[in-house]
Amino acid sequence: MAVNGTEREAMSRALELAARGPRGVNPQVGALILSPDGEVLAEGWHHGAGTPHAEVDALSKLAPGAARGATAVVTLEPCNHTGRTGPCAVALIEAGVSRVVYALDDPGVASGGGAERLRAAGVSVESGEQADAAHALIDGWLTAQRLGRPHITVKWAQSLDGRAAAADGSSQWITGPAARADVHLRRAQADAIAVGTGTVLADDPALTARDGDALYPNQPIPVVIGTRPTPSDAAVHRHPHPPLFYDTHDLQAVTADLHARGIQSVFVEGGPTLASAFIAAGLADRVLAYIAPVLLGGDRLALTDIGVASIDQARRLTVTEWLPLGPDLLAIARPADDPLSQNEGTD
Amino acid sequence: MAVNGTEREAMSRALELAARGPRGVNPQVGALILSPDGEVLAEGWHHGAGTPHAEVDALSKLAPGAARGATAVVTLEPCNHTGRTGPCAVALIEAGVSRVVYALDDPGVASGGGAERLRAAGVSVESGEQADAAHALIDGWLTAQRLGRPHITVKWAQSLDGRAAAADGSSQWITGPAARADVHLRRAQADAIAVGTGTVLADDPALTARDGDALYPNQPIPVVIGTRPTPSDAAVHRHPHPPLFYDTHDLQAVTADLHARGIQSVFVEGGPTLASAFIAAGLADRVLAYIAPVLLGGDRLALTDIGVASIDQARRLTVTEWLPLGPDLLAIARPADDPLSQNEGTD
Repeated sequence: MAVNGTEREAMSRALELAARGPRGVNPQVGALILSPDGEVLAEGWHHGAGTPHAEVDALSKLAPGAARGATAVVTLEPCNHTGRTGPCAVALIEAGVSRVVYALDDPGVASGGGAERLRAAGVSVESGEQADAAHALIDGWLTAQRLGRPHITVKWAQSLDGRAAAADGSSQWITGPAARADVHLRRAQADAIAVGTGTVLADDPALTARDGDALYPNQPIPVVIGTRPTPSDAAVHRHPHPPLFYDTHDLQAVTADLHARGIQSVFVEGGPTLASAFIAAGLADRVLAYIAPVLLGGDRLALTDIGVASIDQARRLTVTEWLPLGPDLLAIARPADDPLSQNEGTD
Repeated sequence: MAVNGTEREAMSRALELAARGPRGVNPQVGALILSPDGEVLAEGWHHGAGTPHAEVDALSKLAPGAARGATAVVTLEPCNHTGRTGPCAVALIEAGVSRVVYALDDPGVASGGGAERLRAAGVSVESGEQADAAHALIDGWLTAQRLGRPHITVKWAQSLDGRAAAADGSSQWITGPAARADVHLRRAQADAIAVGTGTVLADDPALTARDGDALYPNQPIPVVIGTRPTPSDAAVHRHPHPPLFYDTHDLQAVTADLHARGIQSVFVEGGPTLASAFIAAGLADRVLAYIAPVLLGGDRLALTDIGVASIDQARRLTVTEWLPLGPDLLAIARPADDPLSQNEGTD
């Protein structure tokens, strides 16, 4: 039995609800309870660690028995373990829910298996609806679960021919206003923003996320990586968050420490040396290349050396979107060997 | 009075008809005659120098008086001069045509002015319908008219980060089958295909246009530019056309000679040195960058030096299309300072 239009709409709504919850040790999840004829009976979402999961939050708004024969639409597979709250799979079964539609499988060893438990109780279960969007919402949490480090986005702007600047180092502005606005919006969605000390010395960036002249409510924590000292009057010291300085080139150590601090997503903003180092180390979960319709030539490359000696070592990507932004183009990609890429054709 | 749906369809058909004509000293042009209620009365196209123009070819298929009150749909502005044939504007007026819809203004000093002449005779005239497609069809002829040299397309394949090969020189295959098929189709549409002697020595390319294993009926003339000698057993010697060799780095001289030979379009296939030289010389009317979703790093760049010292000298492009080809992306662009780009927003 396929997912119907009402359930599809409900999933879109559940994703909106999920985004209301805080990022933290638990994933953001949203849920709706639908009557057998598709009416929305209740909405719920997870409000943070120690509070009810999304399904239970939704069920709690109904009178006893009101969910009998209903459909639950959830952005993540209902859990199967008892933590600070009971297993959601059991709560749904006990409420008499007869069908569950969810987006993303739960990757947790302890918490997974909810779908199986639901099916064993005779509940109809459908998975995968809007899984990509659900994944994008909690990719930081998923990476933390899977790899014990933050989800890392490596971003750069380049000319069509792969340069970050002209021969004399001038680069303002390679990309246009739409591309720059997109960068700031994505900065605001990250827990941290990382640059190399070379970029601090060359550009003195503020590393804030700005909507025009205003600051976005969420500001990523600035992270400066490298062995050269940051000047005491650098703009990064005026960031709303105190910067983290890592006097090292050991990126594994840096990301492990960021993970220990609860940082789930890092936006690596450059320059070319740091971006290349993250890619060479296999630490780029997502690549954002903003491509301007400009040719520059010369030796100011957006990426330098990434440890590829021969074509069979090429870092192959799966581009999930080629997104036009005004005259520019944003390539959104992840490594082709990412488990997420395995289900997709690359033609 | 705007162009209506029937006229729009007729223009698409006229463009198909135009393509039937030969490329040569005259442009390829197609024409339809429509009755006042939109019925197709006659079709015509230009069959080559010394034969009737497209409008006259179409009118010649009608009985005298049959075009009275009709609409002529033509891919190029009806001419206003007497060459080996009479002015088409006059022929249309004398046939009693009451409306003319055309795509592209005639850039010729001698032949232009047809629209004005038609209007002066009380004919309703609309221009610009599908002008881009009409332009693409005869861009070689237009460039030859305007600049006295062939229309030049500079093509390269690159990784997302602008490399043509990995550090050891290996590059097969950066782009996929769809991109390679697209290259061969475009080769078949060019009069000539140019490479540098470095590419001949490194890759020994056949420089044929192939549809799978078969040759396309039209093969571009191979052109080899540079001062190093081509080996006598090079594959280019087995091309259906005898190659042209230019033992020089003077690209102005090369393109002037190609123009004198009647070559209207050149497809520059590389390598990086030749492509960069054409761009540096301002001799790229169109750029085709096939971008593979791969990162390579290193110093095997798709473009080398193009004479840009500072960002204000950047070669700005107008991308007319970002075309996905399987996992790859083709950027189709022309210089932003091309007269054709002036009428378009770049935001």
